[in-house]
Amino acid sequence: MATLQLASWATNLQYANLTSDVLLAANKSFYNWAGCAIGGFASQPAPQIALNSTLGPFSGPATSSILGANGSISHSFADAQIAAFVNGIASHVDDYDDTHLETIIHPAGPVASALLAIAEAYGPVTGQDFMTAFVAGVETECKLGLSVWPQHYDVGWHITSTTGSIGAAVAVSKLLSLDKNHTAQAIGIASTQVIGMQAFFGSDTKSFHIGRAAQSGMLAALLAKNGYTSASDALEAKYGWLHVVSTRENATAYFDQLGREWEIKKNTFKPYPCGIVMHPTIDGAIQLANEISGRSSTIENVKSVELRVNPEVLVLTGKSSPQTGLEGKFSIYHAAAIGLLYGEATPSQFTDEVVKNSTVVTLRRKVNVTIDDGVPTDAAYVMLQFDDGTKLEKHVEHVKGSMENPLTDEELKKKFMEQVTLAIGPDRAQRAYDTFTQAEQLEDIGKIRGMY
Amino acid sequence: MATLQLASWATNLQYANLTSDVLLAANKSFYNWAGCAIGGFASQPAPQIALNSTLGPFSGPATSSILGANGSISHSFADAQIAAFVNGIASHVDDYDDTHLETIIHPAGPVASALLAIAEAYGPVTGQDFMTAFVAGVETECKLGLSVWPQHYDVGWHITSTTGSIGAAVAVSKLLSLDKNHTAQAIGIASTQVIGMQAFFGSDTKSFHIGRAAQSGMLAALLAKNGYTSASDALEAKYGWLHVVSTRENATAYFDQLGREWEIKKNTFKPYPCGIVMHPTIDGAIQLANEISGRSSTIENVKSVELRVNPEVLVLTGKSSPQTGLEGKFSIYHAAAIGLLYGEATPSQFTDEVVKNSTVVTLRRKVNVTIDDGVPTDAAYVMLQFDDGTKLEKHVEHVKGSMENPLTDEELKKKFMEQVTLAIGPDRAQRAYDTFTQAEQLEDIGKIRGMY
Repeated sequence: MATLQLASWATNLQYANLTSDVLLAANKSFYNWAGCAIGGFASQPAPQIALNSTLGPFSGPATSSILGANGSISHSFADAQIAAFVNGIASHVDDYDDTHLETIIHPAGPVASALLAIAEAYGPVTGQDFMTAFVAGVETECKLGLSVWPQHYDVGWHITSTTGSIGAAVAVSKLLSLDKNHTAQAIGIASTQVIGMQAFFGSDTKSFHIGRAAQSGMLAALLAKNGYTSASDALEAKYGWLHVVSTRENATAYFDQLGREWEIKKNTFKPYPCGIVMHPTIDGAIQLANEISGRSSTIENVKSVELRVNPEVLVLTGKSSPQTGLEGKFSIYHAAAIGLLYGEATPSQFTDEVVKNSTVVTLRRKVNVTIDDGVPTDAAYVMLQFDDGTKLEKHVEHVKGSMENPLTDEELKKKFMEQVTLAIGPDRAQRAYDTFTQAEQLEDIGKIRGMY
Repeated sequence: MATLQLASWATNLQYANLTSDVLLAANKSFYNWAGCAIGGFASQPAPQIALNSTLGPFSGPATSSILGANGSISHSFADAQIAAFVNGIASHVDDYDDTHLETIIHPAGPVASALLAIAEAYGPVTGQDFMTAFVAGVETECKLGLSVWPQHYDVGWHITSTTGSIGAAVAVSKLLSLDKNHTAQAIGIASTQVIGMQAFFGSDTKSFHIGRAAQSGMLAALLAKNGYTSASDALEAKYGWLHVVSTRENATAYFDQLGREWEIKKNTFKPYPCGIVMHPTIDGAIQLANEISGRSSTIENVKSVELRVNPEVLVLTGKSSPQTGLEGKFSIYHAAAIGLLYGEATPSQFTDEVVKNSTVVTLRRKVNVTIDDGVPTDAAYVMLQFDDGTKLEKHVEHVKGSMENPLTDEELKKKFMEQVTLAIGPDRAQRAYDTFTQAEQLEDIGKIRGMY
């Protein structure tokens, strides 16, 4: 009954059911997504290859905006399928998006990318209806993720996109007002497209996963709307999603909590544009960089950098010799080095140039990693050993961006403005901030591209 | 090295490497695919929903043909992505296509659907180059299938589409003359889109798998061509395709045989439009129908129908109360009943009407299935027990359409003509037969739509 239970909850969900803290989290998640999509399109080749060289020639009537495209209006729109795909890539390509920490799902990308493109194509859609559909999609992804976590992830799936196509399908179904049975068919069609494996972390294909999940979920909802049949037990069937993609499945327990325990309230925002398990190390490295600045023992006198971290750190970010900026985002060695050398970790520290910089490479080679089951994923021990035998150590107990130590509204705004200003300039960035933070109030969110 | 080994073999493959029996098999596989795609589009709603209501409005410039669309030229073309998708659905929707028996892969669908659409969009492409790319794609699918069989299938994946996106990517890469490294990236992008689970057998989503695999593989090749990066160890990486989708992986052993042991030579053609494991039972039922016709003990006097079959029959086709034609294609009970009642099993016996026909339902309820590991998948025992206590039994040793008992050229032609005539009339059907059987000789296969 998992499939119909989910479909039933989503179709019944009303804007009035969303409490103020749910809406606050939804609004933050949405504008953080927009900032990442605008910034990502401008900063990385992946979304531009996807749009300009590859799918541009396949676009039907251009109804939907490419968030970060800074050319003429005619070069900043595509059909809804392509827009969802490109915005999904752009929103994830910097590894700077949001995170549901229990499952390491980055929930906004697949859902918002599909939803905004559809709203622009099929509107008018009020901001309130949009946010309701967005929450439905995010809750879908996270409850599914909880149902199969951690076995599903351990086997190698990229959980953001494997749950993302289903989340996007539920969200788009909601926006298109599909009934319970049609929504169930959409869930089925989405679930049979399992997108994303961890082998591609550090390449353009990682962000492809998010774009393709958005597009696949949208396609599922459109097909279901038009009577395309699927299975109303798609999730729980013996040869359906929950069983095929995981040796553990416990959807029922989590689906019973739909609308009671809100996952979106646990969504967090990344302070650094890279694999999230490296963030505690970066925190510690930046603290050390600040502490030794102006001291006699400087970074040049560092003999070795000793990290003690959770075992997942090496599983996910163990690249010891990254060659590109994207690979640097999955190198704990690079993360420690740039934190120490630059005192910050912004998109500028994850470029091909910095990854190949000889000072960075030299320090990176001095980084030693010890894994320790006793160190939680949001913690790290970072120690500097100097040539003169002295040591300096930092223990990060709760990383910045965690539930215990969240980004403040000012930090979230600063993150948005930095990314977006680089892409479309300061004036439009300010207008984009004002617009996306007020999306819930719009009478027609499909008009948002004209407002910034 | 599996990924690069495959990419290297495919890029080096030449038309001159294809022996006459490989080419014979390729030509048969291709025109059987075309017949199924033309017939399938006309006979079932799935491809029409996909094209007309859903993706039509998203089409870019219409370069590529919808094989079975019988309207004006302008309604029979779409962009290459959409054409691949719709033709893929159409070619599989009747469950009437080809089968590589060792893996139960239906190999032509994903590969040919992607390849013809690309050839039409990016041509000219000679028939010889086309067939070379086609063979590269089919060998890719089947070697991958062998590498993970049977565990991959047992867990619930629909192996035609899970291997199909990679086969399509290799074929399209070949047609676009990508080099080894770019082909490897295409393999990576295709492999991370794992499409198809068995939960959807009996619904429109089963054929969706084939269309989406074709489209996904094409997209992968186009992205790789334009420099989109992936992983050159996509297949063999710890968190890559071979490990994530199966507990067994032995690509190396099979990939060593690329170009030595040709899988396409083992491709077979379905005599009946339904799940292939039911075919031996249908053979036996038809034999019994012929034998008792005109006898005193007729079908009306049948007390029970006793089947002894391979266990896979109930796993894959165990639907005891099918409600639609599509579900009937996966009901061994329906298969036995229509074989006995009609003495044939053509698309006409798998309609919603026949599935609900009271005579059929009555006989279906008399069918009992015993599973027996000792009965091979290409064999069956079919026994009738009459009211007067007499019995009549048939043992089918090698089903029609098997390697040991293949369809003759005449039977393959009859199958093509029956399907295609219903879709586009007898004159165009004859021209289509003449054209598709001679595809290898064409100077530009992209012009094929104008020839029938």
